[in-house]
Amino acid sequence: MTRRIRLTVEYDGAAFHGWQRQPQGDIATVQDAIEKAIFKITGEQVNTAAAGRTDAGVHAKGQVCHFDIEKDCELVCFKDGINRFTPYEVVITKVQHVEDDFHARFSAHAREYEFLIFNRREPSALTRNHAIHIVQKLDVEKMHRIAQALVGEHDYSAFRTSECSAKSPVSHIEFINITREGDMVKLHIKATKFLHNMVRIITGTLCEIGRDHRPETLIAELLETKDRKKAGKTVPPQGLYFLKAYYPEYEIYDQC
Amino acid sequence: MTRRIRLTVEYDGAAFHGWQRQPQGDIATVQDAIEKAIFKITGEQVNTAAAGRTDAGVHAKGQVCHFDIEKDCELVCFKDGINRFTPYEVVITKVQHVEDDFHARFSAHAREYEFLIFNRREPSALTRNHAIHIVQKLDVEKMHRIAQALVGEHDYSAFRTSECSAKSPVSHIEFINITREGDMVKLHIKATKFLHNMVRIITGTLCEIGRDHRPETLIAELLETKDRKKAGKTVPPQGLYFLKAYYPEYEIYDQC
Repeated sequence: MTRRIRLTVEYDGAAFHGWQRQPQGDIATVQDAIEKAIFKITGEQVNTAAAGRTDAGVHAKGQVCHFDIEKDCELVCFKDGINRFTPYEVVITKVQHVEDDFHARFSAHAREYEFLIFNRREPSALTRNHAIHIVQKLDVEKMHRIAQALVGEHDYSAFRTSECSAKSPVSHIEFINITREGDMVKLHIKATKFLHNMVRIITGTLCEIGRDHRPETLIAELLETKDRKKAGKTVPPQGLYFLKAYYPEYEIYDQC
Repeated sequence: MTRRIRLTVEYDGAAFHGWQRQPQGDIATVQDAIEKAIFKITGEQVNTAAAGRTDAGVHAKGQVCHFDIEKDCELVCFKDGINRFTPYEVVITKVQHVEDDFHARFSAHAREYEFLIFNRREPSALTRNHAIHIVQKLDVEKMHRIAQALVGEHDYSAFRTSECSAKSPVSHIEFINITREGDMVKLHIKATKFLHNMVRIITGTLCEIGRDHRPETLIAELLETKDRKKAGKTVPPQGLYFLKAYYPEYEIYDQC
């Protein structure tokens, strides 16, 4: 009998060309690493679906994916088995047996991301692949204040790439918080869905505001005009972390 | 005219075989990386001395070293020049012109280190080279409470390796704090000096106490018997960070 299994996954995006398996099989992706490990312990070629298909270089602390499997195996064996066969940079932190209609992507009601910016004159020796570096001092209080205009339900067309395949550009940002701890600036955001590169374009736009290169009214203008060209640059991927996905409606049968 | 220059250095120890230059010149060390960069910008072969000669794998957020140089060059040129020629994993964060009798090692009145322990069942995908992993739940409050017996002036012979070359095993620990933030346990310690592997043996001993493998009276017994064999294991280096050195008596002429 087939069971549906949900995994919570942590990974270091620096080691992978993103989540999604590539047509050329020899490119390291997180999906491929997990599916190969599952094959090694069960002999089954499963097909995982993720809550957010992160780009190359993007990290995850709580990515969620699911797959169906025939083999009957204790959940703890899945966890330890997959972790034994994935590279060090992919770690399964939770395994759950979920309802058959659970879908990591389509059942998610909301997602959380964070973006880290290392903000001092000199680059960081310790977090080079885990934050982006901005030399000019960011006015974090201003960035936080102005970012609040993004909260609510809006058309975020100005904050997505031209390649974005989402049918609707409308989403609902529940919160966006920008804080500083020493030299590290953190953007923390929750929304019902994210368009392609949305967090990286929002971060780029707010950083330009934080460096005083843009008027304070820019966010309102972008939501109004929906013009990507007027928004800030897409910042590089290595500061981005998928934190969490929300599934309020789904029951967990068992977990470890 | 020779000037004495003091550098504050951040580095990722995973990329180096410790601070100190090795007789075999082809082994990557932090000292070697810095001296080669200085040679590239000044043509002078300087000899740096560090506040703490960290072992292979040990990191630094605020290592201090000094050297003498003939060439007259703006401090900001030293900083940017060295940073241009060192690997990404070594960053000079501050350059100061100091008095001629300043010595990074011998003038230091105290030093601070921290040690990071990733404490959950699964390893970390994101901090593998920047913290050690302990599976068993650590009782951090107990560790902190018992660690306070180490504070003050003591003979720390039980907490040094047999290869330690320090003339006296006596030091003064000003504070030691153990805290937890999520899955990360942090030990933060300041002392007038540190014996070889002292932080790693203290950490190993307190972790055994935190896992309930040792009596609460162990620290007092170790300070009394001075017996290294009764202390805990030396934990691996990748959780250790040199944070800061104190030079209360020295004047800074200029800095950037």
